[in-house]
Amino acid sequence: MRIAIDAMGGDHAPEQVVLGAMEAVKEYKDLEITLVGDENEIKKYLSDSDRLNILHTTEKITSEDEPVRAVRRKKDASMVLSAVEVKEGRADACISAGNTGALMTTGLLHVGRIKGIDRPALSPTLPTLDGQGFVLLDVGSNMDAKAEHLYQYALMGTVYSQKVRDIERPRVGLLNVGTEEGKGNELSKKTYQMLKDSEHIQFVGNVEARDLLDGIADVVVCDGFSGNLVLKTIEGTAMSIFSMLKEQLMSSMKSKLAAAVLKPQFKALKAKLDYSEYGGAALFGLRAPVIKAHGSSDANAILNAIRQARHMVEHDVVDIITEKASRLEGNEE
Amino acid sequence: MRIAIDAMGGDHAPEQVVLGAMEAVKEYKDLEITLVGDENEIKKYLSDSDRLNILHTTEKITSEDEPVRAVRRKKDASMVLSAVEVKEGRADACISAGNTGALMTTGLLHVGRIKGIDRPALSPTLPTLDGQGFVLLDVGSNMDAKAEHLYQYALMGTVYSQKVRDIERPRVGLLNVGTEEGKGNELSKKTYQMLKDSEHIQFVGNVEARDLLDGIADVVVCDGFSGNLVLKTIEGTAMSIFSMLKEQLMSSMKSKLAAAVLKPQFKALKAKLDYSEYGGAALFGLRAPVIKAHGSSDANAILNAIRQARHMVEHDVVDIITEKASRLEGNEE
Repeated sequence: MRIAIDAMGGDHAPEQVVLGAMEAVKEYKDLEITLVGDENEIKKYLSDSDRLNILHTTEKITSEDEPVRAVRRKKDASMVLSAVEVKEGRADACISAGNTGALMTTGLLHVGRIKGIDRPALSPTLPTLDGQGFVLLDVGSNMDAKAEHLYQYALMGTVYSQKVRDIERPRVGLLNVGTEEGKGNELSKKTYQMLKDSEHIQFVGNVEARDLLDGIADVVVCDGFSGNLVLKTIEGTAMSIFSMLKEQLMSSMKSKLAAAVLKPQFKALKAKLDYSEYGGAALFGLRAPVIKAHGSSDANAILNAIRQARHMVEHDVVDIITEKASRLEGNEE
Repeated sequence: MRIAIDAMGGDHAPEQVVLGAMEAVKEYKDLEITLVGDENEIKKYLSDSDRLNILHTTEKITSEDEPVRAVRRKKDASMVLSAVEVKEGRADACISAGNTGALMTTGLLHVGRIKGIDRPALSPTLPTLDGQGFVLLDVGSNMDAKAEHLYQYALMGTVYSQKVRDIERPRVGLLNVGTEEGKGNELSKKTYQMLKDSEHIQFVGNVEARDLLDGIADVVVCDGFSGNLVLKTIEGTAMSIFSMLKEQLMSSMKSKLAAAVLKPQFKALKAKLDYSEYGGAALFGLRAPVIKAHGSSDANAILNAIRQARHMVEHDVVDIITEKASRLEGNEE
């Protein structure tokens, strides 16, 4: 199995990307990795080149680049060439911690969409109190989604949870403002009916945003605008609370001392909320696994994204989605 | 000034409602309060009846009631009669901690809409790190909002922030998935243009959900579906983090002791996040102030909601919105 990685994407590239890749080949003996990016930069951190190849390019897409324009113009960017490796059959999957919009564009343009899936979905796995996590899709690929798209997300999330997350019958919830049928906007009402009538998924009904971290469902579907809001609200609220907590704990000598004693507990709490443990956000609906690792990924987050891509390839997630999508088309058109 | 209060609404009614009302008349010598509800129940907690009248009724709307049906059928419910007091000029404002949907319906039906405002907006003030707070509207009154509605929200939020929150030039932000112009769904793109072109508000552009608690704007507008998701995600994330924190702190004898030392700090942190300090969620766009106090309101939260209603009446918030809305109609039609 070969995975192509954009070595220049993310806040800590290429160092942490290279370190994560080296860890991965140590862990999986059948894994080969192509690091795409500036050879000189990559070599600074690459202490072992066994099953680690470099595809050299100096062009790269930055986080400030306008996604569509950047992908079209920077044809030799490390992110674009990683996807081309997949397109031309030299890699089974690709990963980038770079510009999210650009990766979605690259994925669509170079890896391509599965027939029967109208829109790809950006799908992170988020933490829950019980440590199980849940897949939220879409969080920003498709802003004005239709009910049919959300239905396709439900199918893709189900396959992923079964194959990669080992959940036999994943519970699918529809993100909504109340749990009762009939709640929400036009999109939620229409989607509710489609999900309720489907035999292919285990629909548990509407789920509210405040219950997400309690693990109310294994797969939660929504339009990309709502999903992005929820994702960023979770991040922002957690960050704000930790910053307020820190301020409070530093307020006196006594509280500083007590806080020092509690350091392991605070650390454990932060680790529980660290969703890079679940890998990156997969772009479901493309013809091969494309993983968006978090922009601030360290080596461990990159390693987890590689594990995730590997699982998706190993368990034929894309093939199974393709097969289900083709049946979907046959049924509905 | 007279305020009508649904004494039977909320998790701790009527006790906490009555206690909050008694505090309020002590604080404001010109204030009279009509407590609407079961006289026998109310009298159990009412130790002083100076400027506190009871309007007796035994009917009430519960949190399980279907809002529209309940308001139509339960014509003598305490919530409905509170709004009728306003409608018939016997009260200047009304407050309930009961069923939110029912209060929105009651407000529309009995208090009525301001001419030129198409849809009322449910508008809580949420906490920020700097203690200033911001008004978020709408959080659930209008699920499928149009750009014109969001523009009206921006105007109403501006007037409220000027008159009640003493902010001379309130910064208005549009809730979106990115800060750049052109981001978001069709609604956000259209609203962005309307807000940008307006002379009546100080538009600061798109604001991201993760920056809300940092105080990025004084007024944030969005459709009711998105606003409700964000509100409940903030609540849910905060609750989950506190519950994880508690679990961690109780994990050993040593951590329990350190946590005991830090009790005042944890309490201060929770207080910072307590948005009942800013009053309830006002229903903007109605012909008189209607305030939804949080369902779990204690006496202090009720007192804050009364203060808020009082400020709205004192500073003619409804009259100013009415005047601005009429100019809006004149300009645009």
